[in-house]
Amino acid sequence: MQVKDIMSQPVITVHEEASLEEVAKLMLQHDIGAVPVVDDDGRLVGIITESDFTGKERGFPFSVYRAPQVFGEWITPDGIERIYAAARARKAKEIMSAPVVTAREDEPVTALVERMTHYDLHRIPLGRDGVPVGMVTRHDLLKLMLDSARQLGRTEGPA
Amino acid sequence: MQVKDIMSQPVITVHEEASLEEVAKLMLQHDIGAVPVVDDDGRLVGIITESDFTGKERGFPFSVYRAPQVFGEWITPDGIERIYAAARARKAKEIMSAPVVTAREDEPVTALVERMTHYDLHRIPLGRDGVPVGMVTRHDLLKLMLDSARQLGRTEGPA
Repeated sequence: MQVKDIMSQPVITVHEEASLEEVAKLMLQHDIGAVPVVDDDGRLVGIITESDFTGKERGFPFSVYRAPQVFGEWITPDGIERIYAAARARKAKEIMSAPVVTAREDEPVTALVERMTHYDLHRIPLGRDGVPVGMVTRHDLLKLMLDSARQLGRTEGPA
Repeated sequence: MQVKDIMSQPVITVHEEASLEEVAKLMLQHDIGAVPVVDDDGRLVGIITESDFTGKERGFPFSVYRAPQVFGEWITPDGIERIYAAARARKAKEIMSAPVVTAREDEPVTALVERMTHYDLHRIPLGRDGVPVGMVTRHDLLKLMLDSARQLGRTEGPA
């Protein structure tokens, strides 16, 4: 089975100059967990995922204490809402991860799963000449199980 | 802001005796990345996420070589499809992760984000007396940014 048999299309993208507020709105509207970031030519330059909004745990300098940072800011007792409010106007290109691990539509699914596992990724955009044309998420892998059931059904059914 | 202001409801659950095929079908149907597993009394006993279907990279015994395992099986060159087909009939309780990190609806969002970051979780089920009543995913955190924009809009608007 090839990547194109389980991929999601069309792929929703944002321009690198879009604000984080626009990015958040788009991701909620389309119920997607990540959005590839493109330049003026529609070429993939990065990716923003829901995990960028959750932040990462980081160590304090000269300390064993670790605490979560969101958009590079420590979460303080007055709440995370202030950080989100302040980050609304920041641009996609400031927050995005780059470079992006990608795949091609004609690769076997097994190769994609190995890459996803190796880099601990939740989704991989598919590119054609640098332009995103689809996406495979961990969610899409669920289709493999149902598809194998359907194939079995066809094999076992009456001729 | 409290957890209940951003949580997703209703929460879709599966019984611990459900087959993985049923679980995959349910997750695709409802387009959800995880499903809490419950016992006969509807109490939370575990969770299955899309990442369980992607597998984990593990080291070979007596070797530095690492390779991905899905449902405890090494991915072989003949493809991952065989593993999925063989796992269809396995039960939710065999695959689920337990115990589950949970939260309460009346907790501040900041506490939930800290927990999510600390345990590197993508979603946290919300429990009331051990019964799942909602879910907060990383995706739901996007709402914080739009909500802060709306609040600002209200404050700045005409009196």
